[in-house]
Amino acid sequence: MTVQMREARVHRLPMSAPNDTSAIANLIASGEIDPGSIVAILGKSEGNGCVNDFTRGYAVQSLELLLSSYLDTARIHNICMVMSGGTEGALSPHWILFEAMSAMKANPARFPEGALALGTHVTDDFAPEEIGRLAQVEAVAAGVHAAMAQAGIARVEDVHFVQIKCPLLTAERIRAAGGASQVATTDTLRSMGLSRGASALGVALALGEISKAELSNAAIGADLSLFSTRASCSAGVELMGCEILIMGMSSQWSGPLAIGHAVMGDALDVDPVRGVLRSFGLGENGQLDPAGRARITALLVKAEASKSGHVRGARHTMLDDSDISSTRHARGFVAGALGGLIGHSELFVSGGAEHQGPDGGGPCAIICDRT
Amino acid sequence: MTVQMREARVHRLPMSAPNDTSAIANLIASGEIDPGSIVAILGKSEGNGCVNDFTRGYAVQSLELLLSSYLDTARIHNICMVMSGGTEGALSPHWILFEAMSAMKANPARFPEGALALGTHVTDDFAPEEIGRLAQVEAVAAGVHAAMAQAGIARVEDVHFVQIKCPLLTAERIRAAGGASQVATTDTLRSMGLSRGASALGVALALGEISKAELSNAAIGADLSLFSTRASCSAGVELMGCEILIMGMSSQWSGPLAIGHAVMGDALDVDPVRGVLRSFGLGENGQLDPAGRARITALLVKAEASKSGHVRGARHTMLDDSDISSTRHARGFVAGALGGLIGHSELFVSGGAEHQGPDGGGPCAIICDRT
Amino acid sequence: MTVQMREARVHRLPMSAPNDTSAIANLIASGEIDPGSIVAILGKSEGNGCVNDFTRGYAVQSLELLLSSYLDTARIHNICMVMSGGTEGALSPHWILFEAMSAMKANPARFPEGALALGTHVTDDFAPEEIGRLAQVEAVAAGVHAAMAQAGIARVEDVHFVQIKCPLLTAERIRAAGGASQVATTDTLRSMGLSRGASALGVALALGEISKAELSNAAIGADLSLFSTRASCSAGVELMGCEILIMGMSSQWSGPLAIGHAVMGDALDVDPVRGVLRSFGLGENGQLDPAGRARITALLVKAEASKSGHVRGARHTMLDDSDISSTRHARGFVAGALGGLIGHSELFVSGGAEHQGPDGGGPCAIICDRT
Amino acid sequence: MTVQMREARVHRLPMSAPNDTSAIANLIASGEIDPGSIVAILGKSEGNGCVNDFTRGYAVQSLELLLSSYLDTARIHNICMVMSGGTEGALSPHWILFEAMSAMKANPARFPEGALALGTHVTDDFAPEEIGRLAQVEAVAAGVHAAMAQAGIARVEDVHFVQIKCPLLTAERIRAAGGASQVATTDTLRSMGLSRGASALGVALALGEISKAELSNAAIGADLSLFSTRASCSAGVELMGCEILIMGMSSQWSGPLAIGHAVMGDALDVDPVRGVLRSFGLGENGQLDPAGRARITALLVKAEASKSGHVRGARHTMLDDSDISSTRHARGFVAGALGGLIGHSELFVSGGAEHQGPDGGGPCAIICDRT
Repeated sequence: MTVQMREARVHRLPMSAPNDTSAIANLIASGEIDPGSIVAILGKSEGNGCVNDFTRGYAVQSLELLLSSYLDTARIHNICMVMSGGTEGALSPHWILFEAMSAMKANPARFPEGALALGTHVTDDFAPEEIGRLAQVEAVAAGVHAAMAQAGIARVEDVHFVQIKCPLLTAERIRAAGGASQVATTDTLRSMGLSRGASALGVALALGEISKAELSNAAIGADLSLFSTRASCSAGVELMGCEILIMGMSSQWSGPLAIGHAVMGDALDVDPVRGVLRSFGLGENGQLDPAGRARITALLVKAEASKSGHVRGARHTMLDDSDISSTRHARGFVAGALGGLIGHSELFVSGGAEHQGPDGGGPCAIICDRT
Repeated sequence: MTVQMREARVHRLPMSAPNDTSAIANLIASGEIDPGSIVAILGKSEGNGCVNDFTRGYAVQSLELLLSSYLDTARIHNICMVMSGGTEGALSPHWILFEAMSAMKANPARFPEGALALGTHVTDDFAPEEIGRLAQVEAVAAGVHAAMAQAGIARVEDVHFVQIKCPLLTAERIRAAGGASQVATTDTLRSMGLSRGASALGVALALGEISKAELSNAAIGADLSLFSTRASCSAGVELMGCEILIMGMSSQWSGPLAIGHAVMGDALDVDPVRGVLRSFGLGENGQLDPAGRARITALLVKAEASKSGHVRGARHTMLDDSDISSTRHARGFVAGALGGLIGHSELFVSGGAEHQGPDGGGPCAIICDRT
Repeated sequence: MTVQMREARVHRLPMSAPNDTSAIANLIASGEIDPGSIVAILGKSEGNGCVNDFTRGYAVQSLELLLSSYLDTARIHNICMVMSGGTEGALSPHWILFEAMSAMKANPARFPEGALALGTHVTDDFAPEEIGRLAQVEAVAAGVHAAMAQAGIARVEDVHFVQIKCPLLTAERIRAAGGASQVATTDTLRSMGLSRGASALGVALALGEISKAELSNAAIGADLSLFSTRASCSAGVELMGCEILIMGMSSQWSGPLAIGHAVMGDALDVDPVRGVLRSFGLGENGQLDPAGRARITALLVKAEASKSGHVRGARHTMLDDSDISSTRHARGFVAGALGGLIGHSELFVSGGAEHQGPDGGGPCAIICDRT
Repeated sequence: MTVQMREARVHRLPMSAPNDTSAIANLIASGEIDPGSIVAILGKSEGNGCVNDFTRGYAVQSLELLLSSYLDTARIHNICMVMSGGTEGALSPHWILFEAMSAMKANPARFPEGALALGTHVTDDFAPEEIGRLAQVEAVAAGVHAAMAQAGIARVEDVHFVQIKCPLLTAERIRAAGGASQVATTDTLRSMGLSRGASALGVALALGEISKAELSNAAIGADLSLFSTRASCSAGVELMGCEILIMGMSSQWSGPLAIGHAVMGDALDVDPVRGVLRSFGLGENGQLDPAGRARITALLVKAEASKSGHVRGARHTMLDDSDISSTRHARGFVAGALGGLIGHSELFVSGGAEHQGPDGGGPCAIICDRT
């Protein structure tokens, strides 16, 4: 007897430029990707990952152009597209495309712990004066619960990663809001951090990691003791609301993919990530061998410069460098730390981990093929 | 019966700015450092590591000011000072100070394989038109042999690392040379690479890694199949000759310190470095624990962006980034890869590995305390 | 009695981001722009203007999306789109849209000297190994003559500006060509300069400013005595051929617009540009007043750092700055010099003036409304 | 009958690097500069002008090394040394050395309006938590009055320029102060702006341009309607107090030098500066000719990106550029605007004009030789 089950499929594909969607187009042409089942597309694009990073919008526009041959506009806008700019060091630009299939399964119980489950939600647009403030925190918390319901994940401990794309302030938007006195900050680069932080606190609130009583506008971007162990937030100029993608484990889903997560305590703290590999039977010693590496479908992690100015007692210079944003420094370094463990550089390292893991650290999720 | 032996001491010390020599001053004051026995001081300073990095000259000027209280000018100029700019990612600015002591030893044979041995040499200044060309290669090769003799190292296989500081071209120097037609390049940033490459080929020639017949001006910076497995070259605006520091093992030296080296094949290739740790009885699994970490006196490595544009088949963007020099990208990433292994970020990662290891890789040396 | 005449119309319009084509869309909706008569669109977009500036491709893709509602693909590809990245200093991102209308004129002789005339041509794609070499020079020279014929400009002295968009080399393209030995340079940023220079020499050859005998591959990017006084070349990753737009004066064209040009001898040499203003009856003293400013439809100029390393005997640091490309420095400075004269910052200042004017200087054209 | 008068001498001298003091050394050797009469040395050094600009400290250390051959340490520390980093565009690194001589004058009344007068003052060091706050404003105001008295300037309208060097916050200093809750900001780059702003408001208070009642910690960096027309403040990591140099006109001083000032209303507003030139009988039309140029001993000006995001209605991108600090953009652009007027690029353009002139503009002073 067979039953109807959902199954997540994840494709990690290269891009030669922000507008290069050919790898996706090829898999659609070959039938390996069904456009109608796409629920989310993440992109690691090669901009600076900061305020004036137009590679994110360019990549989204290019994806929409490609998909417009297969899907209508409304359906395309239901796909959660999160572009994270910044491929510092040897990081390699790539797409991570998520499909949610529905199929009759002869043996749904093959993995009693269930399988990778996906859920998405898009919030309403924010006013510029709401960005980086409690209004954003609460809208995200509600969105996380909506996405969990959609994914069929009942327990918060089964949520392993929440990827959010959120807006930022620009000089134009600050003016539109009525100027400096109206917005959380007039520093556009800093607005990216406040927006990421407010989104992360929304995840922490939804997952019961913090209580509403601990929250205030003043705490956002300031009280580093408040954080989520599973939030990953990325800010971009090309939207004014939040796009939420939840990844977890659910018995309503089948298939070979599973997800686990860990929290890096600082930029050097790779052993917890090695622990996730071990939970999948990998990474006993040194770097993954090619066979093990092939089982890693995707690695997603947040990186940031510790506000303390130190890592394990040694001073870093990331916060005092006026030539390169600290987010760029942190992505390149953490990419190296995890690349040395996994053995390749197609890693989704996203900068700016405000309230995403402890100061200087960040959440890391690994999607693994169990077959 | 006791015998006269030499012994190398190595101090790794923090700096809070390029002119902060207080950590060295404190150890001189406490008697732990004898100014008269200093043979070399390396510095990882927080500039951009490129043409207009004045943190190197500032650090050297500050060291000379400190030492002028203890040594005369001629003696100070005999100390090999190699400042390498660029502390990308979590890299921590620091000094590595080398002393060569001479003492009566009761048990010089404690380590039959001998101990860390040091030798230095300074070449004559080059004319701007000689920089990055065969004249520089040959002057460096002769200098390496002179430094080996001084160190008491007879066999080239006992040389584990050769640190060289070499000059670069500036707009001023190109003009002084008579303009574009006279010099190896008019691109000042590129001149740093040609000078590093010519120095590295000088080491390879001296150590028998390549033959003179394989060399030509055209091959410098172009024929990536020619390289040294032990050269580390750093270019700076503040000198016009080459300063050479050799590190190896010699039975003429005693003490707890030993040195080993490996070659990273690419920016992700950390397992050979783990092999060096294992040769010292460390690093079986995962990251070094605090006890093991404390035994690592210094780690020196070269990093660069592979000219192929790929790492293990995945495209990197370091060579196409016009906002950040590829040398800065490479230092931050390799620092992460090795920091994840060692567990701290006071690593001497030097950018620009032309002819220093294979394309995209680089030599790595570790000085370990065997006690 | 009336006669059939052509008339050029030029619209200078703001953009709030590389994909903001709303100002153009609004004028199409109001009937002030006829999509069918558009011959060229220049864009000053806010990227770094260097190798990894994707704002150019994003702007072009956005223009094509807009125009696809009005024109078929073949017609859109006949429109010469030249995006120049880099809005340093107070430079303001903007579009300059050129229309060629055809109309019955009652009084075509109103301006006996004729009026602004336009012509365009697109060359075939180049192979990567042709970029920055004589093959590119010759293809551009032929293209300039084709564009003059199309514009109805018989005498080379009536050509006042030639805007060219040309390709560059990337790590990918160098590999495709078979590697370092095949291409003019492996330095991707430098390839932009060689491509601009080869294009400019093609203009100089076509306009009789230099002779074929003076040309060689070695002279490209090296012999600064060879230059055009009217070429403006901009390199971008998004094409592999050259797009040519010619601007001049012709009695076959009517209307209020006229064009004049001058050559800046160095980055401070604004008085020749003041001379062009005076030829239009403007700019006697100080900065243009609002009435005079309103008559300046467009200003186009090239800027570069002098390879001599000096401006009027004073050292500049643009060529030794490894944090900011010299092209970015030069655009911001020349924009200030000419902005102080004109009184606004919507200036089409394009970086990299290899063989476009003398070393450190560049051609400047002004389109003025004579009514 | 002769009387004792003071006379100011000003030397503008080139530097080939931050440590190049040879031009000063040569004039000391030739007797043209008397080390004992030096009251101030300004330097335009070639760093990024932001937090991690060590060219300022390097230049100061180099000046101290030079002067230590002629003056004792206490006397050297009485010399006001203000290094301003950032030589964007064609700006040329240079020193401006001020001497105050005392001599018997036969005809002190030659210039009835008097002559350039100089005064200096150094405040006590601030605690990190005082930087950018009212404590700094009040200390500077008291210091300005002390410097006026020293200069023999009785009327505030005779003060034409007040150059101040002030401190900034670094990650280290914020930690020393007890963390984020104690200091005005945790953003080190932003701390430079608050420190400059507090210093400028101190000048405005001292010169009666604003009243104490208008001031508050909240207004610093926020209320752009409060500004001085004569303050020029530059922040650097190498000090913790404020160094103040006053320039004005006084009948107690003689000699050929005079000073005048104007305020630029925005980055394009060069005509008020032309007005100052006209007050000296220069600059009727176009750019100064070589004879007029030779009479301009020094030009000092502040530049900044308008917080409005616009210049004369046209959007600029300086505040949204995460690759280049807006202070670097603004210096290069304003340098071009004034360089086009004066005709050379040895201009002391200092970035960050918070409360120094209106939003987007800045004070400009010109020292002219009247002979």
